[in-house]
Amino acid sequence: MIEVNAESYFSENIKSALKNDPPGEWMPKLPDKCIRLSSGFPAPSLVPVEQLKDAVASLLEEENDLPLHYIGSPKVAKLKEQIQERLQEHDIQASRDELLITSGACQAIDLIARILMDESTVIAIESPTYMEALEIFQNYTSHFVTVPVDEHGLDTEMLEEMLEERKRKGVTLPQFLYTIPTFQNPTGTTMSTERRKHVLKLADKYDFLIVEDDAYRELYFDKPSIPLKAMDQEDRVLYVGSLSKVVATGMRIGWVAASPEFITALSWFKKDLGHPFAQATMASFLENTDMEKRLKSLREAYKIKCDALLSALEQYLPPSVSWYVPEGGYFVWVKTEGIDTSELLTEALSDGVSYVPGQYFFLNQQDGKAFLRLSFSYENPKEIDEGIQKLGNVLKQMLSGK
Amino acid sequence: MIEVNAESYFSENIKSALKNDPPGEWMPKLPDKCIRLSSGFPAPSLVPVEQLKDAVASLLEEENDLPLHYIGSPKVAKLKEQIQERLQEHDIQASRDELLITSGACQAIDLIARILMDESTVIAIESPTYMEALEIFQNYTSHFVTVPVDEHGLDTEMLEEMLEERKRKGVTLPQFLYTIPTFQNPTGTTMSTERRKHVLKLADKYDFLIVEDDAYRELYFDKPSIPLKAMDQEDRVLYVGSLSKVVATGMRIGWVAASPEFITALSWFKKDLGHPFAQATMASFLENTDMEKRLKSLREAYKIKCDALLSALEQYLPPSVSWYVPEGGYFVWVKTEGIDTSELLTEALSDGVSYVPGQYFFLNQQDGKAFLRLSFSYENPKEIDEGIQKLGNVLKQMLSGK
Repeated sequence: MIEVNAESYFSENIKSALKNDPPGEWMPKLPDKCIRLSSGFPAPSLVPVEQLKDAVASLLEEENDLPLHYIGSPKVAKLKEQIQERLQEHDIQASRDELLITSGACQAIDLIARILMDESTVIAIESPTYMEALEIFQNYTSHFVTVPVDEHGLDTEMLEEMLEERKRKGVTLPQFLYTIPTFQNPTGTTMSTERRKHVLKLADKYDFLIVEDDAYRELYFDKPSIPLKAMDQEDRVLYVGSLSKVVATGMRIGWVAASPEFITALSWFKKDLGHPFAQATMASFLENTDMEKRLKSLREAYKIKCDALLSALEQYLPPSVSWYVPEGGYFVWVKTEGIDTSELLTEALSDGVSYVPGQYFFLNQQDGKAFLRLSFSYENPKEIDEGIQKLGNVLKQMLSGK
Repeated sequence: MIEVNAESYFSENIKSALKNDPPGEWMPKLPDKCIRLSSGFPAPSLVPVEQLKDAVASLLEEENDLPLHYIGSPKVAKLKEQIQERLQEHDIQASRDELLITSGACQAIDLIARILMDESTVIAIESPTYMEALEIFQNYTSHFVTVPVDEHGLDTEMLEEMLEERKRKGVTLPQFLYTIPTFQNPTGTTMSTERRKHVLKLADKYDFLIVEDDAYRELYFDKPSIPLKAMDQEDRVLYVGSLSKVVATGMRIGWVAASPEFITALSWFKKDLGHPFAQATMASFLENTDMEKRLKSLREAYKIKCDALLSALEQYLPPSVSWYVPEGGYFVWVKTEGIDTSELLTEALSDGVSYVPGQYFFLNQQDGKAFLRLSFSYENPKEIDEGIQKLGNVLKQMLSGK
């Protein structure tokens, strides 16, 4: 007997997806002593470790075995209410049947893709965009409309031009636009209010849906933005949120808020039977946490880190390098003149500082060669300063060697 | 402005899936005082609540914030090793790249469907079979070959006849067979060794894969069976397992063991970014638990419950009713003569006992009208006895009223 050829059994529609680059292989292993400006996750001190430990203890004290079965924990329903209340604070009204709890924002995006996309679907994405979302969409289609992002977020004028041109030529219009309007990953920029209004108008005019990924919205420095979902009067927006950035990524609590027909379809294809223990633990954590206070201190901490990063950039980076100044979130997007940031990474890592090369955030990776994403979420101001000094040095070396 | 019609945006291949019955709506709400012979989950006393609480505490003590990020906890890799070791005890050798940890067996089955199935795929399933798996497959295709199960498990002679007939007629052969060979859900029966050999031969001859769902295998009363995966010399078996039945369903820890090409493809489409907290907690639990001792006591407890159920059936059920005697697992499958077990359920619930009507385990629900599934996992022997007495009463009443 001989072993079977696995590929010959794969379904046709995954065969084309498998022709893309393998998922998640964007970063080399970091050296042990490395200032991590690549990490999209918070510093240990900003993770509520003790409180989550207490949340588990008090949950199991109160409910005994209930959260350890498929169903039965009242806290699972409680979490849904707590998220409904949080959404209300952002002017999003979502009834029970307009909200689905997911394993983080990524599962939410994947489920949305599952119900809306097949291999002929065209979708519009920001360029650059969140790499995980890009991978998810590439699992379904190879037809993308890419729209540039600038310091005011998605360039809706460009989007309109592209849509109008497609319409004129009779080419298929996008089924939906995937956007991170607030503190975008990777650029850190925020869509202006005028552009928000414009994109909703375009959605109506050219009949597409909007998948709004709002994972960073709570982490503003000065003031919150209005979600597209809160401005949406046509139920065109499928709103994706998460507690990853304000509690802990490892808990995997996210959601979709959308009209009931979408939520029903999404639930239909969510086949992991839920995560009662994680959800009930989060409900118990939220019950025992003053979230307004927690958010306030997170905002202050991230603002201090961001300021440290911005002054270090001013101080250490050569004048040919530019960046966007974020109003919240985790990231600063840096543009070099003609440097290949993948090549530069080898030097940077051996000098002890990491970042994510820009190419991974683009459908066409060549478009991202000169960019890099810095994250201020993980390191403290002193290390951020030191890291940018190192980055400045390797950048200058590479520029002088050119 | 008017609200959009969600359905008009759905992809074509979900539109046909949505024509099936809605998922998961198989049981009415149980009354407060009800002996639960419907529940497919363990009694509170069999759930290691304290140990899981301790596992979380010692995990966060040891690793601090690490298991609360996307990546970073050494315990996530540890869990994989622990599962590899457990598989080895069942004569299944799975290297790191032959094993994928999933959110329970259901996510594993859904991912397998994702890589192998599209709307034209034919698959073979047992009849009756696990209702969640049936729903998953119905999300992809409407082409099923249903093969009866008897007291020795899947009827492989019937399977061979069906395959031969399809081959003769030039009809598409199944892409894979989904089977629960050991303590099948819902029948509780176990595939004999001859039939196991036979089904592997058929897989070779008619070139199909086997998805082996082995969620109950550890819960044998006397002796373990040999997994199909351990007998498989051609890498035709995708082996699905879970810690749900021996630790806790709510933790959502399952896996697929298969050849590396399958595992790569499955990982490619697993887009929830993993569950580090749940996985690291499970690793910590397993490190601090004598699993052999735990399994021994579970086996003893379930055997006592099963014996109580079987003697109660002998004592209280009318002679026209028959059942299979299981050698492990959670379930006893009961056949009535001409009773509609969905109708009977209303009476049973108002008398204070629950079960799952047989129809939900069949593709063609009519085929299951006369059957019902009893579970001995949740209640203790005294309640089981009382519950079957109640069930006997309502059955006799309905029979006499006919």
